[in-house]
Amino acid sequence: MSTPLRAATSLLTDQYELTMLAAALADGSAARDCSFEVFARRLPPGRRYGVVAGTARLLDALAEFRFAEPELEVVAAFSDERTLNWLREFTFGGDIDGYREGELYFPGSPILTVRGSFAECVVLETLILSILNHDSAIASAAARMVSAAGGRQLIEMGSRRTHELAAPASARAAYLAGFDATSNLEAVRSFGIPGAGTSAHAFTLLHSGSDGAHEAAAFRSQIETLGLGTTLLVDTYDIAQGVATAIEVAGPELGAVRIDSGDLGVMARQVREQLDALGAVRTRIVVSGDLDEYAIAALRAEPVDSYGVGTALVVGSGAPTAGMVYKLVEVQGRPVAKRSSHKESRGGTKRAVRLSRRSGTIVEELVLRAGQDAPAQEAFTVRDLQIPLVRGGKPVADLPTLAQSRELVARGLISLPWEGLKLSAGEPAIPTTFLQ
Amino acid sequence: MSTPLRAATSLLTDQYELTMLAAALADGSAARDCSFEVFARRLPPGRRYGVVAGTARLLDALAEFRFAEPELEVVAAFSDERTLNWLREFTFGGDIDGYREGELYFPGSPILTVRGSFAECVVLETLILSILNHDSAIASAAARMVSAAGGRQLIEMGSRRTHELAAPASARAAYLAGFDATSNLEAVRSFGIPGAGTSAHAFTLLHSGSDGAHEAAAFRSQIETLGLGTTLLVDTYDIAQGVATAIEVAGPELGAVRIDSGDLGVMARQVREQLDALGAVRTRIVVSGDLDEYAIAALRAEPVDSYGVGTALVVGSGAPTAGMVYKLVEVQGRPVAKRSSHKESRGGTKRAVRLSRRSGTIVEELVLRAGQDAPAQEAFTVRDLQIPLVRGGKPVADLPTLAQSRELVARGLISLPWEGLKLSAGEPAIPTTFLQ
Repeated sequence: MSTPLRAATSLLTDQYELTMLAAALADGSAARDCSFEVFARRLPPGRRYGVVAGTARLLDALAEFRFAEPELEVVAAFSDERTLNWLREFTFGGDIDGYREGELYFPGSPILTVRGSFAECVVLETLILSILNHDSAIASAAARMVSAAGGRQLIEMGSRRTHELAAPASARAAYLAGFDATSNLEAVRSFGIPGAGTSAHAFTLLHSGSDGAHEAAAFRSQIETLGLGTTLLVDTYDIAQGVATAIEVAGPELGAVRIDSGDLGVMARQVREQLDALGAVRTRIVVSGDLDEYAIAALRAEPVDSYGVGTALVVGSGAPTAGMVYKLVEVQGRPVAKRSSHKESRGGTKRAVRLSRRSGTIVEELVLRAGQDAPAQEAFTVRDLQIPLVRGGKPVADLPTLAQSRELVARGLISLPWEGLKLSAGEPAIPTTFLQ
Repeated sequence: MSTPLRAATSLLTDQYELTMLAAALADGSAARDCSFEVFARRLPPGRRYGVVAGTARLLDALAEFRFAEPELEVVAAFSDERTLNWLREFTFGGDIDGYREGELYFPGSPILTVRGSFAECVVLETLILSILNHDSAIASAAARMVSAAGGRQLIEMGSRRTHELAAPASARAAYLAGFDATSNLEAVRSFGIPGAGTSAHAFTLLHSGSDGAHEAAAFRSQIETLGLGTTLLVDTYDIAQGVATAIEVAGPELGAVRIDSGDLGVMARQVREQLDALGAVRTRIVVSGDLDEYAIAALRAEPVDSYGVGTALVVGSGAPTAGMVYKLVEVQGRPVAKRSSHKESRGGTKRAVRLSRRSGTIVEELVLRAGQDAPAQEAFTVRDLQIPLVRGGKPVADLPTLAQSRELVARGLISLPWEGLKLSAGEPAIPTTFLQ
């Protein structure tokens, strides 16, 4: 049994895409020009906006979407020679347009449009959705935490609560949304995100001896190796004693203390008073332990300098997947849509614009037919939301960097009407109007 | 920006493990004999049991846990030469005992015990927890779906709703718990799980022409390529018309029809009547679309032959992570535990046994000190729960195969008291008693 760590991404795919391919190659429909669209029918319950994330990871994965012999062997079990030959030669040669990574989205936003032959578009469904649904869910939750934190530092430390390879992607999505650092070293390596982390309770417990706990020995050791700027974890035994010991060992220039348990608001106030009384007025307070956006917001009046967020971040704070779908919307220039109950889709290739007031506050999203002009706007600024991402199978030049996408999220949050930033359950911050 | 697909798993780690390592190497405590324990303080809200999963994936990942130059470069940014040299030479040489993969677990069950030097144990924390927390969350949700399905076929099709590399691991966990097949081709390749999948709405829509829909053309094409045993998706337009067309094209020997929308119970009954009236009495009915264990149970009285389960499976049906922690419990033979509020741990290396009646029904889990004998039991059968997994850094021979673990889950579900199988929220099915 081997771990799924091949570079090729082509088997990160549902079998039905390749059975459809086989039938379409056999009957000649595989070559028809198609448009597929990624959109979310709705936001997760109560959410007021979503954040598009994963686009850059998707383009990387697309470049590795190829079928060599190990992949073809799997497909051969249920497919025919014609299909295998087609897959052997396959690279995606179509066009992709989409929302910039870091753009806000709303119900029905045409987040991605994939155009090409049916064959080359249909095989990408699962890969596209897996990446966008995961990363957008995390970024959307993270953005709420960022706005709740009101400018204080946020450290992502949720790796242990999610799949080991989802962890670096989660760290990236959190950073994109405005988090400052991650505990995950693979995210540091892959994406250049600042790393963070000093010690766990185990380090203090390691230094307990047969004559009892030696918290001071653990702190001394940590400072000797990591320097005075480090963060000492003070709640292994008694927090007040831990703080006293920390300053006794480190002096008032200690970088930070971390509290990982108890009523964090009460603790933060007590610890701040104690630190100040000890002259450690610049020693920062880091809190962690089951924080979500609500707990972060509840601590805004407290002397907390930094939040460590784990579980709630990597599970999307109640919405672990973004619910985006990938639907065929146009065949040979004609709009198509299914008509079964509760799952209507809107046919036709689309574009979208967002209207904002002169102040920058957004007011509405308009979804149009591709090529259709937006109605003239007197009072509002009109901004196109889709940009070219792939042309003839190749990523276009000058796609947004992670830093630019992070800046875009920050600008997006500022552009929301004030109700859009409320953490309470509510309607989407702006309406989506379909004009096509 | 590269995708995180290196074979080495050593950076799937939190930075603080390596800063603790650096300090422990500097002060000499790194060599102390330690025991770390994996356990869950509680089950997810309302859950009555958990299923241990991920053990085999963990042992695979452990074999790739090494620091070569690309990994060391990342560590060098915050670490010293001594630590880098230690990591360069590192392979885990300790012992691991644990619950068999597929074993049920309850609050406080000592699911894994990792013994070795502090240095070699501390660096494994994140990797161990990521894998066990993810896979156990999925398997635990899947087991509830399996018991709700009452022996009918379950197909995992959730890849698009989770991280692209979490998807095959989810498929594996679902299969372990008793699912019959997966849509995910990487899971077929990596783990040998049976694949499934035929077509999506896009295939029907592809065959619509300028003179209207040609559902019959799509069905005919699919049958020509995939054979009469295939599953036709009948709800793209009108379900009754779709079923009529399907049997018209395929004849009464059609393998199955799939319904993906509408009130599935009502639809299944109508479709069954229609199929029977058309003489297609052996044509099976597959349902899909936002199914979870409750929806599966609600369909038990309906003529459904097979369930396709997506989102709810891969997000753990409300509990996307298992909440397991990795705690230092013993140093140089002495139990250690932190004492901060709300997060007490129990010190000491442990073993566990499960008591069952002669009927096979389990009644209690006893957690003991390592080496401590279980109290004599007149009325109950006593079974040891931990087995050796790793000795001297190497996996032991004859670890349970995926098939054996799958069989163990099935036996575990049968062993639960009847209340333990209820889907409603409740207490753990059996109590855990700590005797150590």
